[in-house]
Amino acid sequence: MKRFPPNDVIYRFEHAMPAKHQVATGEVFEVATNDCFYQQIHSSTQVLEQIDADRLNPATGPIAVEGAAPGDLLKVEILAIDVAEQGVSITAKNEGLLGKHVKEAIVRPIPVKDGVAEYLGLKLPIDPMVGVIGVAPAAEDGAWPTHSPWKHGGNMDTKDIRAGSTLYFQVAAEGAQLALGDLHAIMGDGEICFTGLEIPGIVQLKLEVIKQKRIAWPMLETKEDTQIIASGKSLREAMEEANLQAVNIFAKALKVSWEEAYILASLTVDSKISQVVNPMVTVRAAIPQHVLSTEKILAVL
Amino acid sequence: MKRFPPNDVIYRFEHAMPAKHQVATGEVFEVATNDCFYQQIHSSTQVLEQIDADRLNPATGPIAVEGAAPGDLLKVEILAIDVAEQGVSITAKNEGLLGKHVKEAIVRPIPVKDGVAEYLGLKLPIDPMVGVIGVAPAAEDGAWPTHSPWKHGGNMDTKDIRAGSTLYFQVAAEGAQLALGDLHAIMGDGEICFTGLEIPGIVQLKLEVIKQKRIAWPMLETKEDTQIIASGKSLREAMEEANLQAVNIFAKALKVSWEEAYILASLTVDSKISQVVNPMVTVRAAIPQHVLSTEKILAVL
Repeated sequence: MKRFPPNDVIYRFEHAMPAKHQVATGEVFEVATNDCFYQQIHSSTQVLEQIDADRLNPATGPIAVEGAAPGDLLKVEILAIDVAEQGVSITAKNEGLLGKHVKEAIVRPIPVKDGVAEYLGLKLPIDPMVGVIGVAPAAEDGAWPTHSPWKHGGNMDTKDIRAGSTLYFQVAAEGAQLALGDLHAIMGDGEICFTGLEIPGIVQLKLEVIKQKRIAWPMLETKEDTQIIASGKSLREAMEEANLQAVNIFAKALKVSWEEAYILASLTVDSKISQVVNPMVTVRAAIPQHVLSTEKILAVL
Repeated sequence: MKRFPPNDVIYRFEHAMPAKHQVATGEVFEVATNDCFYQQIHSSTQVLEQIDADRLNPATGPIAVEGAAPGDLLKVEILAIDVAEQGVSITAKNEGLLGKHVKEAIVRPIPVKDGVAEYLGLKLPIDPMVGVIGVAPAAEDGAWPTHSPWKHGGNMDTKDIRAGSTLYFQVAAEGAQLALGDLHAIMGDGEICFTGLEIPGIVQLKLEVIKQKRIAWPMLETKEDTQIIASGKSLREAMEEANLQAVNIFAKALKVSWEEAYILASLTVDSKISQVVNPMVTVRAAIPQHVLSTEKILAVL
C-alpha cells in the first residue's frame, strides 16, 4: 500500500497546484500527516512566540486522482485514522471563543495510550478526526490558506470527519488534488479554545470519482445522516448556507414545494456547530438517513 | 394524580405572578398544554392573518412548589410526554432562518399515530419535547413574554427537554412558579422554519427543591451529558454564555486553572444549536457525564 510522507505539504489550497502524488480510483492508500504546528510544540514550558508561523497548518498532498475532472464529485472514504502517542493542546490570550478571559498562554502536551488521552488526571476516550481536508478550489474562488474552510473543504474542523465517514467534494481542477492534515485525537463541537488535541498520524483513504454532479459545499455521509458542511463569516451565515442546500435537496428529491421542504427540514434536520475559531466559521446541516438517504440525495444532484 | 387544565395559562413570565396551582416536592403530577397557537390553526386553507395573536404561546401554570425560595434550585424531572393525534406546522414569508426564500405562507396539519408523524408521504418517528418551560424570573430581569427564552427558561425550544431529562432552574420567587407549554412532536436542532410539529399534550412531572445553589442559566441533565442552556442576541453571544459557565464549572470542580479548564472544554464540550427563530436565540454547551457528572457539578454550584 502506498503511504505518502508528511514532508510533502501545502499551506494553501490553490486552483492550479501541481500534484505531488497520484492514485487510481478505488486504490486504498495512506497519508502521513503532521499536527497543525508541524510538531514544533512539545513542552509545557515552550514560548509560543518562538515557533515558525510559516509552518502552521501543513496539509499533506496534493494527491491527484486518476480520472477526476471539473464538474465531477470526488468521493473520499475515510477508512482508518491512527494517531501518534502524544499530542498537544494550547490556548493563549484573546484566542478562541472566550479569549478575552484568558490571562496567560499555556501549552499542554497530552499523552495518548490505548485509545485514551490523559489530561488533568482524566481519562478521555479519543475520537480521532481530520481537521483539514480539501481539494483544489474553483478558479473563481481564489486561493485559500489551509487554516480556513470554504467550498473546497479546508479547515472545516468537523468531528464527524472520522473513520467510517465519507466526504464528497466538488472537483474544480484536473485530478481533484486532495490534501489533508490537522488531525485531532479528540475535539468538542465548537473547538472553543482554538485547538483540539493536535496530533500527527496516518489516515487510510479510498477515492472514487462520480461523474458530473454539482454540490455547493462539501457533503459528509455518516451512518446516521448526510451533512452539508458550510462556512461563513458568522454562525448564522454558515447555518443559512448549509440549511438552504438541505431544503433545496428535499424539494428536488421529494418533488414537493420549497415551502413544504422548509417545514420538513425544520422538523428533521439538525444544525450542528463545527468550529468558531477559524477565519470562516463552520456549521453543518444533518439530514437523517431515515428521512432521505445519501444514495437518494446523490441521485438528484 | 393531579392534572392541571390547559385553560389556566400565562403569556408572560413575571417575577410576581400569582400561583394558579400548588404541588408538594416529590409529588408526581400532570400538566395539560396547548399548542403554541392555542389550537387556532387546524386547516391547510386557513388564513394566518385571522388568528388571534394575543393567544400565541400559552404556558400552563404558574404552579407553586412547596418550600421553594429565592436562592434555591428547582429540579424538574420530565417523566413522560403524551402528545395529541394531530399537530400543525406552518411557515410564512420572512419567517425563520431562510424566510427571505419563502414565497407563500403554508399551513400543514400533520397526523400523529403510533409514535409516527406522517408528512409528505414520509413516516417520521416522533421525539416529543417541551418548547416553553420556565419559572418566575428575578425581579431585576424584568418580565419575559412566553415566546422568548432567557435565564428563567421560557421558549428555549431545546429538543433534549424530553421524557427522561431533568431541568434545573434558579428559583427567584417564593414557590418558583413553574409554567410550561409549546410541545413539539418532532423538531430539528435550529427549528429553522419557525415551527416544529406544534401539538397539544400532557406532561408528567416531578419537582424537588435543592437548597441554596447558584446557576446563571437553566441546566439540563440527560443520560449522556449536562447542558447549560444560554440565550442571546446572536448564536455567538449565546454560545459564549453557555461555554463560559461550562469552563467555570470545570475549573471549580476539578480545581484546575481557568486556562486548563478552557482546553478541557475545547476537547470535550459540544456546543449545540437549540433554536434561531425566537427573540433571543439559544445554544447549549454539553458536558459529557463521563468527563464530569451532573452530581459532581451540583456539588460545586
